[in-house]
Amino acid sequence: MEKSIDSGTLFALKAADTQGIKTVWDRYEAQKPQCGFGETGLCCRNCMQGPCRIDPFGEGPQTGVCGANADVMVARWVARAVAAGTASHGGHAKHLAHTLLKSANGEAPDYPIKDEAKLRAVAARIGVTNVGDVKTLARNVAMKALEEFSEKESPLTWAASTMTKGRVDTFVKLGVVPTGIDSVVAEAMHRTTYGVDADPVNLLLGAIKCALADYAGCHLATDLADILFGTPQPAVTRANLGVLKKNAVNIAVHGHNPLLSDMIAQVADDKGLNDKARAAGASEGINVVGVCCTGNEVMMRHKIPLATSSVSQETAILTGALDAMVVDYQCIMPSLANVAECYHTKLITTMSIAKIPKATHIEFQEANARESAAQIISVAIDAFKKRDPKKVSIPDVSSQAIVGFSTETIIGALAKVNKEDPLKPLIDNIVSGNIYGVCLFAGCNTVKVTQDANYVAMIKELAKNNVLILATGCASGAFARHGFMTPEATNKYAGPGLKAVLTAVGQAAGLGGPLPLVLHMGSCVDNSRAADLAVALANKLGVDLNQLPVVASAPEAVTEKAVAIGTWAVAAGLPTHLGVVPPVLGSKVVTQVLTSTAKDLFGGYFIVEPDPIKASAQLLSAMSERRKGLGLSA
Amino acid sequence: MEKSIDSGTLFALKAADTQGIKTVWDRYEAQKPQCGFGETGLCCRNCMQGPCRIDPFGEGPQTGVCGANADVMVARWVARAVAAGTASHGGHAKHLAHTLLKSANGEAPDYPIKDEAKLRAVAARIGVTNVGDVKTLARNVAMKALEEFSEKESPLTWAASTMTKGRVDTFVKLGVVPTGIDSVVAEAMHRTTYGVDADPVNLLLGAIKCALADYAGCHLATDLADILFGTPQPAVTRANLGVLKKNAVNIAVHGHNPLLSDMIAQVADDKGLNDKARAAGASEGINVVGVCCTGNEVMMRHKIPLATSSVSQETAILTGALDAMVVDYQCIMPSLANVAECYHTKLITTMSIAKIPKATHIEFQEANARESAAQIISVAIDAFKKRDPKKVSIPDVSSQAIVGFSTETIIGALAKVNKEDPLKPLIDNIVSGNIYGVCLFAGCNTVKVTQDANYVAMIKELAKNNVLILATGCASGAFARHGFMTPEATNKYAGPGLKAVLTAVGQAAGLGGPLPLVLHMGSCVDNSRAADLAVALANKLGVDLNQLPVVASAPEAVTEKAVAIGTWAVAAGLPTHLGVVPPVLGSKVVTQVLTSTAKDLFGGYFIVEPDPIKASAQLLSAMSERRKGLGLSA
Repeated sequence: MEKSIDSGTLFALKAADTQGIKTVWDRYEAQKPQCGFGETGLCCRNCMQGPCRIDPFGEGPQTGVCGANADVMVARWVARAVAAGTASHGGHAKHLAHTLLKSANGEAPDYPIKDEAKLRAVAARIGVTNVGDVKTLARNVAMKALEEFSEKESPLTWAASTMTKGRVDTFVKLGVVPTGIDSVVAEAMHRTTYGVDADPVNLLLGAIKCALADYAGCHLATDLADILFGTPQPAVTRANLGVLKKNAVNIAVHGHNPLLSDMIAQVADDKGLNDKARAAGASEGINVVGVCCTGNEVMMRHKIPLATSSVSQETAILTGALDAMVVDYQCIMPSLANVAECYHTKLITTMSIAKIPKATHIEFQEANARESAAQIISVAIDAFKKRDPKKVSIPDVSSQAIVGFSTETIIGALAKVNKEDPLKPLIDNIVSGNIYGVCLFAGCNTVKVTQDANYVAMIKELAKNNVLILATGCASGAFARHGFMTPEATNKYAGPGLKAVLTAVGQAAGLGGPLPLVLHMGSCVDNSRAADLAVALANKLGVDLNQLPVVASAPEAVTEKAVAIGTWAVAAGLPTHLGVVPPVLGSKVVTQVLTSTAKDLFGGYFIVEPDPIKASAQLLSAMSERRKGLGLSA
Repeated sequence: MEKSIDSGTLFALKAADTQGIKTVWDRYEAQKPQCGFGETGLCCRNCMQGPCRIDPFGEGPQTGVCGANADVMVARWVARAVAAGTASHGGHAKHLAHTLLKSANGEAPDYPIKDEAKLRAVAARIGVTNVGDVKTLARNVAMKALEEFSEKESPLTWAASTMTKGRVDTFVKLGVVPTGIDSVVAEAMHRTTYGVDADPVNLLLGAIKCALADYAGCHLATDLADILFGTPQPAVTRANLGVLKKNAVNIAVHGHNPLLSDMIAQVADDKGLNDKARAAGASEGINVVGVCCTGNEVMMRHKIPLATSSVSQETAILTGALDAMVVDYQCIMPSLANVAECYHTKLITTMSIAKIPKATHIEFQEANARESAAQIISVAIDAFKKRDPKKVSIPDVSSQAIVGFSTETIIGALAKVNKEDPLKPLIDNIVSGNIYGVCLFAGCNTVKVTQDANYVAMIKELAKNNVLILATGCASGAFARHGFMTPEATNKYAGPGLKAVLTAVGQAAGLGGPLPLVLHMGSCVDNSRAADLAVALANKLGVDLNQLPVVASAPEAVTEKAVAIGTWAVAAGLPTHLGVVPPVLGSKVVTQVLTSTAKDLFGGYFIVEPDPIKASAQLLSAMSERRKGLGLSA
């Protein structure tokens, strides 16, 4: 299997080979064959009478020591994975909520309210009445946000206020309404503990309840980031390792929370620091690049170019030109410390809950964020001085990427076509079949498949069938690297109907050409933006989400966060494709529920298909079924 | 290896053998050899690039795909295990808090405030001022309790108000102060997610922070159970399978939360139901017996005999005389459904988060608890009618057990010796060496060692060395079965100093003989009672917990809850013995921190020793060291 189809990544991996530096691909090879029990989910370590295993071929014991069978083991894995994902997105959102509160209280002067309109929109949606000044409003929104984490009597505001009525009714009917983000994580952990829930279907419903809290956490994170840093607007930038500059102090921001990365992006423009960089020999000053989701955050708000994404994060260091890799939390490979050791690169951890031995830890303090950011940049400048020019090898590879299509931006663009009724052009084109359906690409890059191959194969297939493509997270990284976030891609790959629509909207919006083939909606938590768009469509049509020709795909899912997001996408009614087989095949019951029963209960369901062409066909078939259901040409 | 040293258990297992029914011991044999990667903690399934394994012998890859090494994998397991344990105890405590609130609001008429004195004592301790009537006070305490689960600005009230000042200072210094139970569970899940915390020491500190929330959850559960059901007082009852009656409708309550079991114990006295039972042919009416921790709860409050405990829970059904096994949550083997199928026994699940396929689910509603309990008992009576007398085989084995030594009871008994200064006799005897130290036995029974063997060997060793023995959970079940909760055991096994003290206190308390050798403090959450006693001693002596000759032992630990409890015991300053090796040996760093570095930081540390005689020697040595530190004879 090829490691990647991305020439930037392959270039950097050659450097690794030459220098004998091990990367994620080497570590994956070394792990093969991976444990068949773990791969099928038939391993349990939830108590100390274990570890227990069940033979996936039906030989040997069919239960663990306590009597838990394959279904229980697999369902417990799903529930704990969703709990971990929810805890992660929740932690990210809570961090933003605390900062918003500090901002409102004057305790975080470096974080002013940047987007008052968004603040007012969110406040109105969640029922926070506009009393007093902006700070008071922000304080009330922040406090309401913080309430979401505790168990309440009522459903989570950020879920209930953003979903269709039909969805909320379904969730109530099935008993999967979460009332607190942290509390439902704890509930999932409790029910998966030794000797608690042993009913696989009940466990999966618990997982779905938790996943809906993940949805709320994601939406919260998006809303609060927009309030603090501005709602994204279209921005033109570039993606791939070629965005690193030989003559600049290169600083990569990696992780998820814009609290850190946005501040570094801001402070990197500081004249004094750039002078310092130039004095150190970097004639082009400071060059901040993004990696992974926090890369998405600053890409769409500050045009910061995206160097690379999740699975290939080590390649940024392998160029020999990265002076500092500054990380917050989530998806940060511990191996970065080992790769950085082979170079002058400073790996800088910044969060108390995410340290790495051998890294430099500079605790990021919101109270003096600008100062912390300046300190971090100074460390990078010092590191630059130790850069070994002989080791520098930056691939001359990058693609243009037009990014930052928030829901607000998309509706704004549509409003240029129909000011009174912005969604009408979109709906008309779905009805006419110019847009056959909508597919949201999300999730990670994984070492288990050729990097980016699934994304590229699927987008070509779907685009030529007139499917409107949205992307977030590392899916957007893949598309950006390969030039799919350009008008040129629209002209080259879009089917005639889709091309006509994207061109008409692009022209009306004054772009002088079509919108890019992929509408970049942001980071992983910004999957909530795609949900908002789908909800707006459903409400406008007077139908529910599970009737829309809207699908999702995570062709290279890795993290437990992806399990959480995929699960709420299914609960939201979306047929959801996974290109990597999750560790559930050991249970017929769980596999059946996730791929079939879920359809009866929620409308959404998982489609597990490693082959990208077959997966595209299945997604098109799902959209066809939905179109038929709505009485549209299919 | 023998399965058990308990004759009741062995008797029942013969019936299983005869009938070809598989039990936990058979399933354990079938699992052997257990996975060596899992046993040493060198397996990671926290993302879908895995499963990853590290060879414990140093061959093959030394990191997972992401670069996580053995230390990270093992530390993450510890943190997630603690999170699961904390979530479980927290769920239990929260359930009680909601019920107390409903009680105060008149929404749970079957749950009046039984112990107003305890309510007032708890209220005073946590700073809830006594406004209005009892209901108002109860409401304020319940609301304060519910606040503990959400992230707050201040430390958890139930931890800060019950620990020594020295401990609190240490926790603050080390940055391990939890501010919310559910929120710290979520934080632990976040930091253990792919690409977050990769520093094993930081992960372990996170686990300790979470474990301190577990401590608060346990304490909360104890306090609220006492308020709702009464603070335990000494009660004489019996333990072992012989408590099942041939001519009664036998109902076992199994699980943890007294909300269910206490109500069943109450309703089982109902004349109408007993008449119904007799009409069905059960001449002795209804006989409720306990299993596991909820068995401890009703044993000490209602003298309900204890049939058996965790690892041997299936044996109650194997007698052929159990008509219903009624379960709430935690430590309930899914296998019960399969064993019950071989008999007439009804397995009844009652909690929405703990279902078992093939069981009868009767959702327990606090709002009409008495009615739910009556319904459950009626199902048992109906099941009795289908009992097959040929299959009935109850071992004629049970021991007397004097139980219910809450902190209040112990101090009350000491007050009979010294009314003005009840702790003085205890301290004087520790100082004089009559009491060499105190050992709290806690935790489970496990299939991995001969059931009860470690407990019995260790208590003999420690008692003869004048160690005062406290016990909770399934540790108390083991001691009760073997007759150690009797004055006779004191006479037989206690060293001269200990015997003199237990006799003097017993005489003063009007028992006409010594206190039992083991002071039974309750269920697993009641480990908080032992902590209270230690804190009272420390405060009285003007020292901190890490200076006292007080130790803990879990010779047969199984659940993630035990990991949480053991971890807070260590943080509280106690040398804490584990008789089963937890899956941490794959990491030198983690092993070192838990068994050694922790001593420098907290005073407490883990002693992992499967041999009970060696373990006793190590605990005695730890007490000796503490005694020397206090300037006492050692």
